[in-house]
Amino acid sequence: MKACILAVGSEMLTPFRVDTNSLTVTDRLNAIGYDVRLKAVVADDVEELATVVESALEWADVIVITGGLGPTEDDITRDAVARVLNVPLDVDEQIVSNLRERFARRGIAMPDNNRRQAMVPRGATVLENKFGSAPGLWLEHGSTAIVLLPGPPREMTPMLESVVRDRLAPRTNGAGLFRRVLKLTGRTESDVDAQAQTIYTKWTKQEIPIATTILAVSGQIELHLTAAAANRDAAHAALDAAVKELQDSLGDIVYSTEGRLLEAVVGDLLRERHMTIAIAESCSGGLLASRITDIPGSSEYLDRGVVAYSNEAKTDLLGVPADLIAEHGAVSEPVARAMATGIRDRAHTTVGIGITGVAGPGGGTPTKPVGMVCVAVVVDDESWVRTFQLFGGRDLVKYQSATAALNMLRLMLLTRAPVPRN
Amino acid sequence: MKACILAVGSEMLTPFRVDTNSLTVTDRLNAIGYDVRLKAVVADDVEELATVVESALEWADVIVITGGLGPTEDDITRDAVARVLNVPLDVDEQIVSNLRERFARRGIAMPDNNRRQAMVPRGATVLENKFGSAPGLWLEHGSTAIVLLPGPPREMTPMLESVVRDRLAPRTNGAGLFRRVLKLTGRTESDVDAQAQTIYTKWTKQEIPIATTILAVSGQIELHLTAAAANRDAAHAALDAAVKELQDSLGDIVYSTEGRLLEAVVGDLLRERHMTIAIAESCSGGLLASRITDIPGSSEYLDRGVVAYSNEAKTDLLGVPADLIAEHGAVSEPVARAMATGIRDRAHTTVGIGITGVAGPGGGTPTKPVGMVCVAVVVDDESWVRTFQLFGGRDLVKYQSATAALNMLRLMLLTRAPVPRN
Repeated sequence: MKACILAVGSEMLTPFRVDTNSLTVTDRLNAIGYDVRLKAVVADDVEELATVVESALEWADVIVITGGLGPTEDDITRDAVARVLNVPLDVDEQIVSNLRERFARRGIAMPDNNRRQAMVPRGATVLENKFGSAPGLWLEHGSTAIVLLPGPPREMTPMLESVVRDRLAPRTNGAGLFRRVLKLTGRTESDVDAQAQTIYTKWTKQEIPIATTILAVSGQIELHLTAAAANRDAAHAALDAAVKELQDSLGDIVYSTEGRLLEAVVGDLLRERHMTIAIAESCSGGLLASRITDIPGSSEYLDRGVVAYSNEAKTDLLGVPADLIAEHGAVSEPVARAMATGIRDRAHTTVGIGITGVAGPGGGTPTKPVGMVCVAVVVDDESWVRTFQLFGGRDLVKYQSATAALNMLRLMLLTRAPVPRN
Repeated sequence: MKACILAVGSEMLTPFRVDTNSLTVTDRLNAIGYDVRLKAVVADDVEELATVVESALEWADVIVITGGLGPTEDDITRDAVARVLNVPLDVDEQIVSNLRERFARRGIAMPDNNRRQAMVPRGATVLENKFGSAPGLWLEHGSTAIVLLPGPPREMTPMLESVVRDRLAPRTNGAGLFRRVLKLTGRTESDVDAQAQTIYTKWTKQEIPIATTILAVSGQIELHLTAAAANRDAAHAALDAAVKELQDSLGDIVYSTEGRLLEAVVGDLLRERHMTIAIAESCSGGLLASRITDIPGSSEYLDRGVVAYSNEAKTDLLGVPADLIAEHGAVSEPVARAMATGIRDRAHTTVGIGITGVAGPGGGTPTKPVGMVCVAVVVDDESWVRTFQLFGGRDLVKYQSATAALNMLRLMLLTRAPVPRN
């Protein structure tokens, strides 16, 4: 089953905005087996949108259009669809009265232009919007379903989920496209590809073939496994077996088989071991602390972090001896280790992390080039220190430094058993 | 002049990837007056891409296609364009020999499938790729230009810029679409809109009309002014006048008229005043330090940051009296102020910042709900403390807390004169 996703709105045709609704729509459609073949962003122009919809009607089983359902002149989705289907727009009095009520609840009269939102192409089914004023619409043309959804994500997503469950899923008979995402780090993309390729080449020839895509983003690697199958349970069984085979081959470089964030995986490992953590950062500039604190509940294990940019800060806050910095330089393994043990000892936590390096673009030298980063992780009486040569701009060096530290900690925690509560 | 941008690649039709090349292409095309009317992501399928290109040929003055120029079977852009234009693909021996040389320089023989990259639709001009193996292509069909660019941004962008300068700009005669972006923070979108609307309504009726769009993202507001004009200089003059009028009306809530980041603006203000800064964060979890250190050269003014998640850390690292926390709670204006002065006194910097709040989703109480954040900024002997009620998820509360602190600091620095060097 083929899907086309259209986002309507001239603001998404500027250099400043991307359409992200289509990612949510793709995820929900993929889950029930629709294959997205085309997505487009169209200007607020009746004629142009009508042309695109008309051409999608020739091949798509479902066309999902987000945006352009507001009350202003710019909101042209209803008009364009009515034009393509060659049906009139009728006023739906039920929508008008719902809108009136909605405004009355806020103590204001309905502005006249909101009547536009009650215009419905003849033959359409109205989809209730629990979180905003723009109702959605469901239409059918031949065997193609056309779904009109509001643009704001918090209105769009719940409406999409109802439509997928109640109207689109029943059209697929359980056939579909199913997916798993393995996330890994600590090896290069080509290295992982070389090792895994013989495995996933074999999968393309089995009864339920599995297609594999490898993607590298900011030093982390994702393996996407996709099975197209007539039967949902059989597809999931094939994917489960495939995931297991890859995990057995790749080992502990795989940190998630459910698409989770590394910082969330590490957070769970810490919590299960009743461990606490303190962080000392230089070149990563607080990004590791920020990534850890992105996870709800991280205050259970994160005690503190320090961004020690100046040498004085490294000495004052972490007790790194000034001599040590003078002897080895601020970017060195001994200093990284002293940062990790210094913050750990002062915070009385189980774990200490120290990161020091050259984020760039300035500050590199022949012996300590931009992208050289030393990371130390101390857990109980064990400590690991490693030096990485990272590539990319300042952002990417910061991000990869934090990732390297999280992954070192993850590998150290995996060798320690979780502690059951009571 | 109308533009259509197509990105080719099935990976951008998954829930995990957006096409971002089109933002760069839009920016460069807008700068020479092309109006992007449609952008689309198309699967790696000759037939489907050919259909989309064919339909764009009916209306577009330029079609820019990124991706699908690699050496594998999946790379179908050349084939699709040749099919639409009904021309054969010829092997370009110059490209073959360039590719051979490129591989030889790395000490490896050219793999046979790289010969695909030397296939050129008859009549095309080859565009040199200085940063990768896939050459670009330039074709014309009637009055429409078709530009094929490689997918990797570091190869795509320089090639795009050459094509824009040498081939596309001369086709526009200086007419075009010109844009300015004002960035502001510290007021609500509707508040800014209410104040500015009378101004920008007037602009729509002047000789060179200016269209205005207001966008709110993570608590920051952008006003995009766009002038469509036959003459570049006249358009820029009209936009300069418009920017000035808005600045005069909105005052110092405008932090950039050049689309700059708030953290870069604040960094310049600090550097111009020879000031240094130290930061104490609780609920923002290191994000403020990380945003400040995203700016190259920030080590000139940032001395240190502390993420004091636990109460002990607030006392140990910042000298916040335990009594003060017991009396007012960790999320309170007195504690924010003690954090700011504590870090400043210990780091001997000019500026100190303290942020404490409830990031959520847990931890809220009736008197201190999720999203309540206290921010203190101390500069010399002046201190500001404010409490904000922020909305959105954990990420958004963190981001807006950091933004609020940066903006308070910016306003305080604006009242102080820069210090000339020597």
